Amino acid sequence: MSIGNEIHDLARDLWGFDRSLTGDGVRKTLKTIKEHLPSLKVYEVPSGMQVFDWIVPKEWRVSAAWIITPDGKKICDFKSNNLHLVGYSTPVNAKLSLTELQNHLYSLPEQPTAIPYITSYYKERWGFCLSQIERDHLIEGEYQILIDSELFDGSLTYGEVVLPGVSEKEVFLSTYVCHPSMANNELSGPTVTTFIVKWLQNLPSRKYTYRIVFIPETIGSITYLSQNLEHLQKNVIAGFNVSCIGDDRAYSYMPSRKGNTLSDKVALHVLKEIDQNFIRYNWSDRGSDERQYCAPLVDLPIAGILRSKWLAYEEYHTSLDDLVRVVTPSGLEGGYNALKKALEAVEHHCYPVITVLCEPQLGKRDLYPSISTKNKHKDTVLMTNILTWSDGTNSLLDIAALCSVPVWKTYPVIDTLVENGLLHLRDNATC
Amino acid sequence: MSIGNEIHDLARDLWGFDRSLTGDGVRKTLKTIKEHLPSLKVYEVPSGMQVFDWIVPKEWRVSAAWIITPDGKKICDFKSNNLHLVGYSTPVNAKLSLTELQNHLYSLPEQPTAIPYITSYYKERWGFCLSQIERDHLIEGEYQILIDSELFDGSLTYGEVVLPGVSEKEVFLSTYVCHPSMANNELSGPTVTTFIVKWLQNLPSRKYTYRIVFIPETIGSITYLSQNLEHLQKNVIAGFNVSCIGDDRAYSYMPSRKGNTLSDKVALHVLKEIDQNFIRYNWSDRGSDERQYCAPLVDLPIAGILRSKWLAYEEYHTSLDDLVRVVTPSGLEGGYNALKKALEAVEHHCYPVITVLCEPQLGKRDLYPSISTKNKHKDTVLMTNILTWSDGTNSLLDIAALCSVPVWKTYPVIDTLVENGLLHLRDNATC
Amino acid sequence: MSIGNEIHDLARDLWGFDRSLTGDGVRKTLKTIKEHLPSLKVYEVPSGMQVFDWIVPKEWRVSAAWIITPDGKKICDFKSNNLHLVGYSTPVNAKLSLTELQNHLYSLPEQPTAIPYITSYYKERWGFCLSQIERDHLIEGEYQILIDSELFDGSLTYGEVVLPGVSEKEVFLSTYVCHPSMANNELSGPTVTTFIVKWLQNLPSRKYTYRIVFIPETIGSITYLSQNLEHLQKNVIAGFNVSCIGDDRAYSYMPSRKGNTLSDKVALHVLKEIDQNFIRYNWSDRGSDERQYCAPLVDLPIAGILRSKWLAYEEYHTSLDDLVRVVTPSGLEGGYNALKKALEAVEHHCYPVITVLCEPQLGKRDLYPSISTKNKHKDTVLMTNILTWSDGTNSLLDIAALCSVPVWKTYPVIDTLVENGLLHLRDNATC
Repeated sequence: MSIGNEIHDLARDLWGFDRSLTGDGVRKTLKTIKEHLPSLKVYEVPSGMQVFDWIVPKEWRVSAAWIITPDGKKICDFKSNNLHLVGYSTPVNAKLSLTELQNHLYSLPEQPTAIPYITSYYKERWGFCLSQIERDHLIEGEYQILIDSELFDGSLTYGEVVLPGVSEKEVFLSTYVCHPSMANNELSGPTVTTFIVKWLQNLPSRKYTYRIVFIPETIGSITYLSQNLEHLQKNVIAGFNVSCIGDDRAYSYMPSRKGNTLSDKVALHVLKEIDQNFIRYNWSDRGSDERQYCAPLVDLPIAGILRSKWLAYEEYHTSLDDLVRVVTPSGLEGGYNALKKALEAVEHHCYPVITVLCEPQLGKRDLYPSISTKNKHKDTVLMTNILTWSDGTNSLLDIAALCSVPVWKTYPVIDTLVENGLLHLRDNATC
Repeated sequence: MSIGNEIHDLARDLWGFDRSLTGDGVRKTLKTIKEHLPSLKVYEVPSGMQVFDWIVPKEWRVSAAWIITPDGKKICDFKSNNLHLVGYSTPVNAKLSLTELQNHLYSLPEQPTAIPYITSYYKERWGFCLSQIERDHLIEGEYQILIDSELFDGSLTYGEVVLPGVSEKEVFLSTYVCHPSMANNELSGPTVTTFIVKWLQNLPSRKYTYRIVFIPETIGSITYLSQNLEHLQKNVIAGFNVSCIGDDRAYSYMPSRKGNTLSDKVALHVLKEIDQNFIRYNWSDRGSDERQYCAPLVDLPIAGILRSKWLAYEEYHTSLDDLVRVVTPSGLEGGYNALKKALEAVEHHCYPVITVLCEPQLGKRDLYPSISTKNKHKDTVLMTNILTWSDGTNSLLDIAALCSVPVWKTYPVIDTLVENGLLHLRDNATC
Repeated sequence: MSIGNEIHDLARDLWGFDRSLTGDGVRKTLKTIKEHLPSLKVYEVPSGMQVFDWIVPKEWRVSAAWIITPDGKKICDFKSNNLHLVGYSTPVNAKLSLTELQNHLYSLPEQPTAIPYITSYYKERWGFCLSQIERDHLIEGEYQILIDSELFDGSLTYGEVVLPGVSEKEVFLSTYVCHPSMANNELSGPTVTTFIVKWLQNLPSRKYTYRIVFIPETIGSITYLSQNLEHLQKNVIAGFNVSCIGDDRAYSYMPSRKGNTLSDKVALHVLKEIDQNFIRYNWSDRGSDERQYCAPLVDLPIAGILRSKWLAYEEYHTSLDDLVRVVTPSGLEGGYNALKKALEAVEHHCYPVITVLCEPQLGKRDLYPSISTKNKHKDTVLMTNILTWSDGTNSLLDIAALCSVPVWKTYPVIDTLVENGLLHLRDNATC
């Protein structure tokens, strides 16, 4: 089975859980992921804790939610689609006229078949979401409303995996597990990340330590940063926020706020090589957890490698963002491969330095033709170009760009040159 | 009455004075300006004083100057138009043939109706200026010439206003008062500057100290610099040379020599926002007192905000540069407003720094909608964009550019964020 | 006689010598050059010496080499054209069938009239080169082969001239003398260099010391660097590798590896002024001794000023690269003049600093018109533009570019300004 199908299967396993900022939907999601990643640790942070400018919210639990129409039909049933209920709705048990009810209904006139995704985390409120078509058919009369929910002092839940490497320096991945049943803007992130971690943990060796978190968006990343900022600022050399990485319609790059970190350079290099038409966003297009990781004074080196970005596809934040038409096995596999190539480029990041003065004599090492003609030796052009730029000021990514090749084409050449004692690889640039 | 008309009225008041590098024309001009700006101080610098590579010239006084033609007509009468006499002409009382006289006449064949503006400050010489049409009609015969002038050890006169601010750091404005009856390349400068000072002195508070000088061009700025260079280099953070700022045909930018001072950044920002078609000159187009303020090793941060620049309009340095067809109330008002917006941008110049880590929770301060939908909250986009760039490395001008808005649109948002304790404003960039 | 004809005559004198990496062809070439440059010193470096990653090769001596065809004709006679023998061919005395012989023949199907230039310096091998046309006419039968050659412990030969200057800082020129009878990619280099040295040694004074070497390519420059690297890195401020500088079809620029040395700036400036259509190569097009001089960690400031570059003209490395159709007197003269102008620009390299604050009063020095009109004084524009940029941060090359003139137009103005005490010239930029 292709890796894309494996990831898609996991997404289908996670589809029905009632995720929100907090609660058992998140816990069930993490439990399923832990079946793939036994080293995943789950953390609970109590409601009410101050996290920078925010407070960890109450936990939300929903037992049932529905509307009975005047003609006795049950609609907007939370059990049939968890998007029907506005996120963090307060409990209600009431009878309302259609006019009164309308104040609590949300639909999208411009997308009449879609159930919108609406939340009200930080102001107490209740409401139902439904398609415009369904809403247009509501008749006058008395509606019975039930929201059997609770908002209580519980906790916010997140998961973390740490894979040690040779170096204490870290590569950081973050993805979120707080949206209910949506595919590209939710499940593509944690599922692709899960399979990236499976690949990372099976590597024969890792240069860097890898830290991966599965968190609720915004409040989760703020909470995580409030507990780990100093450690992350000291150790993280690169990383990616993983979201919207499962459809097959585009590749996209979201820069870090500063735009010139190693993560940015790697993402741009990989995406240019994979898809010349990739979309290059600006920081003004930000919208996911890069807002926290790259906030001023936080400024971790975190960029985004995405397929169709939030807001850039019409199914975004509606029931149409599904695992059938939007997120596909090939879409997930493309995202997985792009992210994997980026992480490989981070692993290989170095500043090569030549060990001999003047050109090395490649011929005596059988790395160069012994006869000189006027025709260029194409086989050795890449090798000599890599050598000539290996002065300790150029990173391997710089060198690949100077040689006009994807960085992964340099890996075997670098290996050969290191084996022949012609290069050593530095972690930092010389001045 | 519009500010443009008020400025134009002052220009008409100053029109007839016989200004030159030195003398009573300058003194009368400054006296009239002092009626608007009582805090103006007038300084006299004696002839013969060494000022850097130059010497303050003798003072020039003209009682009368004219030519009587062979047929008894008085022409080139200094009293009818002070452009008729070559500036700094030595005294003459003689009878000359037309041929002899021609060596002392100046006209512009390509602008036959214009009286040119000619001076000979640093070599003793005499001459008359007249229109080419008038010159072409001169008949053979004896001409009687009178120039009742004096060149004597007197002084060079200039005016200065200093408006104290909270900071000792200064904003510097310079304009000149040494050209006789011409409008754009003379009177627009001191009149717009006078009304800018009236605005500045009525501000409820000033962050910076403002120093404004009304001086003769070149020798005046050299004299002023020779007396104040150390102080200016220590304190001036921005400033503008004000000239050619009264017609309605263009907006123009003259860079400082270095081209990247705060004044340059402010001028470029304001002019881009005011008039997309503004003309951007180079340092090779310099011609006014920026030559002195930005001379190598002087290098004060002085740029120019102009309307039609010297040499760039055909009436320049002729009797056609007048207050009717060239300089208009609306032209003056446009120049006044551009300069005012630039000074406001200097006053607001700062490096904002956010006070919280990660995004602030705007909702709890009623600065953000409490319900989350897929539609962007346009009202809050500018606020969050300002916050995200407020890392202490970006000036407010940088931030405005990053947010694609005129800097003056940021002022109320900055006020709100400072009031809510989310920003503090630094004078200098953090590293 | 034009300088181009003089250089061309020298090239014809050197044409017939059997040059290779080592041997008497090199020695005869240097001896002829020494007749023009008596201060040339000739050095011998013994075979077997370790030079960085390389070993000085054995010396190669050829007494005779030819093939007798089955029908008794002598072909591929080394005496008739030294390109017929593969460079460094081992001795052979044998009879071979045509099939056996074919393994040792080299020709160019796409250039059927050309004898290719082939070498095998670092692997023992023998072979003959001939035109494709001649090869196609070879008949079946027995061929008698003679190569009366020796490979023995001798030495590698090179020549050096040092012309002392006021400063110990050096300008370095390198050209090579290791190719047999070819014109642009060999003789244009040492002949133009010889006449450049003749010009340099006749200069009334030299600011810099000039060091010029005539060496075999690659192993020669590596050998020279291994003996002189520390001295060169300490003293050389600019220099050029001189090769392919004799045809009349193009001007070309080969950058140093870093691309921003004084040599690069000078070469770009001169070539832009001489020929707007000059070809600008990249470091990836390198191929001559710049590979050694600019190797990582060596990084001397050496660029290339060329006419048609190696590989960029079809006659390259064949018998068609001759002194008739390819290299011409006018081609050599153009190359000579470009290199001379570049060296003059290096000699004049300085950072001018104005000696007075504010504009100097040029009028009192008779450097400025005494009467002021609205017309620009074209004569003085260059002078005032040079003065305004003379702040100690701009080199004379920078100033020429800022003034949009060839740097050589500034030399007389600079002289005038220095004589008038208005400029002093610094060796280094002020900060």
